[in-house]
Amino acid sequence: MSRTLILDCNDKIGEEVTISGWVQVRRDHGKIGFLDVEDRTGIIQVFCTADKLGDIRVQDVVEITGKIAERPEKLINPNLETGKIELQSETVTVLSKAAELPFDMGMKTLDLQLPTLLDFRALTLRHSEVRNIFKIQSAILEGFRKVSKELDCVEIVVPEIAIGSTEGGAEVFKVDYYGHQATMTQSPQLYKQMLVPVFERVFTVAHAYRAEPSVTTRHLSVATQMDCEFGFVAFEELLDLFEKVGTETLKHVENECPKELKKFGFKPVAFGKIPRLTLREAQEIIFKEFGRDNRNEKDLNPQDEIDICKWALEKHGSDLVTITHFPTVKRAFYTMPDPENPEYSLSYDLLFRGLEILSGSQRINDYDQLVEAIKSRGMKPEEFELYLQAFKYGMPPEGGFSFGLERMTMNLLQLQNIRQASLFPRDMERVDIRLSTLKK
Amino acid sequence: MSRTLILDCNDKIGEEVTISGWVQVRRDHGKIGFLDVEDRTGIIQVFCTADKLGDIRVQDVVEITGKIAERPEKLINPNLETGKIELQSETVTVLSKAAELPFDMGMKTLDLQLPTLLDFRALTLRHSEVRNIFKIQSAILEGFRKVSKELDCVEIVVPEIAIGSTEGGAEVFKVDYYGHQATMTQSPQLYKQMLVPVFERVFTVAHAYRAEPSVTTRHLSVATQMDCEFGFVAFEELLDLFEKVGTETLKHVENECPKELKKFGFKPVAFGKIPRLTLREAQEIIFKEFGRDNRNEKDLNPQDEIDICKWALEKHGSDLVTITHFPTVKRAFYTMPDPENPEYSLSYDLLFRGLEILSGSQRINDYDQLVEAIKSRGMKPEEFELYLQAFKYGMPPEGGFSFGLERMTMNLLQLQNIRQASLFPRDMERVDIRLSTLKK
Repeated sequence: MSRTLILDCNDKIGEEVTISGWVQVRRDHGKIGFLDVEDRTGIIQVFCTADKLGDIRVQDVVEITGKIAERPEKLINPNLETGKIELQSETVTVLSKAAELPFDMGMKTLDLQLPTLLDFRALTLRHSEVRNIFKIQSAILEGFRKVSKELDCVEIVVPEIAIGSTEGGAEVFKVDYYGHQATMTQSPQLYKQMLVPVFERVFTVAHAYRAEPSVTTRHLSVATQMDCEFGFVAFEELLDLFEKVGTETLKHVENECPKELKKFGFKPVAFGKIPRLTLREAQEIIFKEFGRDNRNEKDLNPQDEIDICKWALEKHGSDLVTITHFPTVKRAFYTMPDPENPEYSLSYDLLFRGLEILSGSQRINDYDQLVEAIKSRGMKPEEFELYLQAFKYGMPPEGGFSFGLERMTMNLLQLQNIRQASLFPRDMERVDIRLSTLKK
Repeated sequence: MSRTLILDCNDKIGEEVTISGWVQVRRDHGKIGFLDVEDRTGIIQVFCTADKLGDIRVQDVVEITGKIAERPEKLINPNLETGKIELQSETVTVLSKAAELPFDMGMKTLDLQLPTLLDFRALTLRHSEVRNIFKIQSAILEGFRKVSKELDCVEIVVPEIAIGSTEGGAEVFKVDYYGHQATMTQSPQLYKQMLVPVFERVFTVAHAYRAEPSVTTRHLSVATQMDCEFGFVAFEELLDLFEKVGTETLKHVENECPKELKKFGFKPVAFGKIPRLTLREAQEIIFKEFGRDNRNEKDLNPQDEIDICKWALEKHGSDLVTITHFPTVKRAFYTMPDPENPEYSLSYDLLFRGLEILSGSQRINDYDQLVEAIKSRGMKPEEFELYLQAFKYGMPPEGGFSFGLERMTMNLLQLQNIRQASLFPRDMERVDIRLSTLKK
């Protein structure tokens, strides 16, 4: 008998069906009992006589044939999409037997310490609370690609092994590449810029490898970056594009995952007109409205970000706020200094509810200026040979931006630790297993 | 004046517009001349008086203001989408000056040797013939994701740095991971399987790192893999899914890129019902129809693949043919042996016009059997700790498949060398620049 998906059982009252899925809960009541069985569409309550329950336990993979019955009115579960029905089992087959679980997987919340959550990652990801994080994450990716495509961007596949050129700053992972020392790329930045003269507008999703010896709750050694780059755009138009990609991605996630977002207590995004402030204007507002004088700081601190977002929501009905003109020295070498005041740059961040989710800039597109910028940061132009080639043969005014997928997931869902926003997080202490368990 | 995209100029006859783009061709005729200017939408002929032409050359980035005029009937160019109009320039501004080109970029075909094509990759990618390869490649990616989504697969982001576990066989790149020796993953295989109990159906696009010391025209050291994995599917259903993903991806590319495909002489795909043959059946046909007795070989050789595709097109009107049941020893350890004859496996390849484009199998989903399979290949189960965890706690019957993005691009377009199908190919001899130019 062919499989019926669990959610489709709602339309099969009185019919015989075969479902398959994982046992999530087992409830024994003497001679009878119940199983909650889950597949990719939902959960159904299965009524069983005790003989059929045998030694079935949570995470066993089962195939169950039986009849779909309506539940009596008072037993309807309004919190379950199949809450008006149950499956009255006739045959129960265990397709795959689960070992005894190291902790309870049947609770609504999986209350585990982070190391345990990650030591048993292949198991804990199955819990709906954890799984929902990654359903939402897949919607972020899809939303990002959808709006990028609408903006005429062509998808590019960029390499992640490079020789020589690094963007400076962050430390890099080293690879033995046929006896040569290569590095894992810190971002798709240099490659996406090189493709502006090819497609004018491009997007990509790529890994960002960052070997900092950092164990903070906000740092991953390997992150995922969503990047766009646009040619023939001036600064104001870049801001339009950047805000559009940010808002459309958020809207897509809201549309695709309303149920999952609700479980994280996510409130609908306020999409008022996004205020645009220079760093200095934002600091002025923070001084006037919140009484903290950070007007000479080179960046917003975490409290500043929270406060300026609070201000944007109150004054402009917007959960988003754009901050521009960060000090040139604080941004990467390819960032265009503001011609009117080169101490500041044509850079921008998009803040969402107190945290930065997107960052970018107009780029230096003049070959000579770019060579000078590389030198001024103590790097060698000859290590950027192919990158500079793109500028040597005609590069229009251009710019772009990127968001961190895990960071955005974490911020949207207010997760405690960015590791919760990565299926298989890599950090100083872990590559699936704890590195401390390995011989050096 | 705001920018008009070149293709939109067709609707602006008699109006003044500003276009911007790259000079592709310059033609001088004494006191007048013409520029062909290209942006992301198309090419337009620009009429200039000699004074406006100055020292403009190919690849200069220009912004041109002028009036759109209809061309006289006899000067219409039917091969150009803007062939009925031209732009009569009033002001010509060079936004970015290109250096003198190392070779002619204005020819219809870019007739360069591969090393030169790659030494000047940031330039050669701009040639429409090269660029079209990657427009088609982006449509392959999009088509793959579209059908995967339709099949209820959730997109996953898999890590590409791992410790210990390799799939065996191919050599691996080694990374210094905070003092520990890690490796770049050979495929997303192990991770996508681990996510079957989470989402049941998943897809991903990931790098495949293969450190073989090989310099053939068909080998890349880093390839891009498109992968699906499905739970609760038996062998026949897996074949349905696999053929669907293959055909829908091809159809999407045909729909999205008709113009680009035509330039490669691509003939419409024959989508007759796909014949399914075991390896031995295929070899029998090759023996009977083509007179070559390879009935004891463990795989099809290149001529076999060509011939069996010829047969499938003639007998079944299909450019695709599915071959199943390859010898178990020839496939990876996780491949399910056929229970009826374990010498052969529940594996499959999809051939397209003489070349394999997809490959996959039903997997071993029983924990103990999988541990034995790992041992039987001389590998250590303890190096697969997290992978095996997924099987320990309940794994349904499952299987999947993958295609190589560059390989499929190469096969579709009949490219000579797989390096032509990678924006920035990595091989033994090159990482953007030639490795021989580096100190070891």
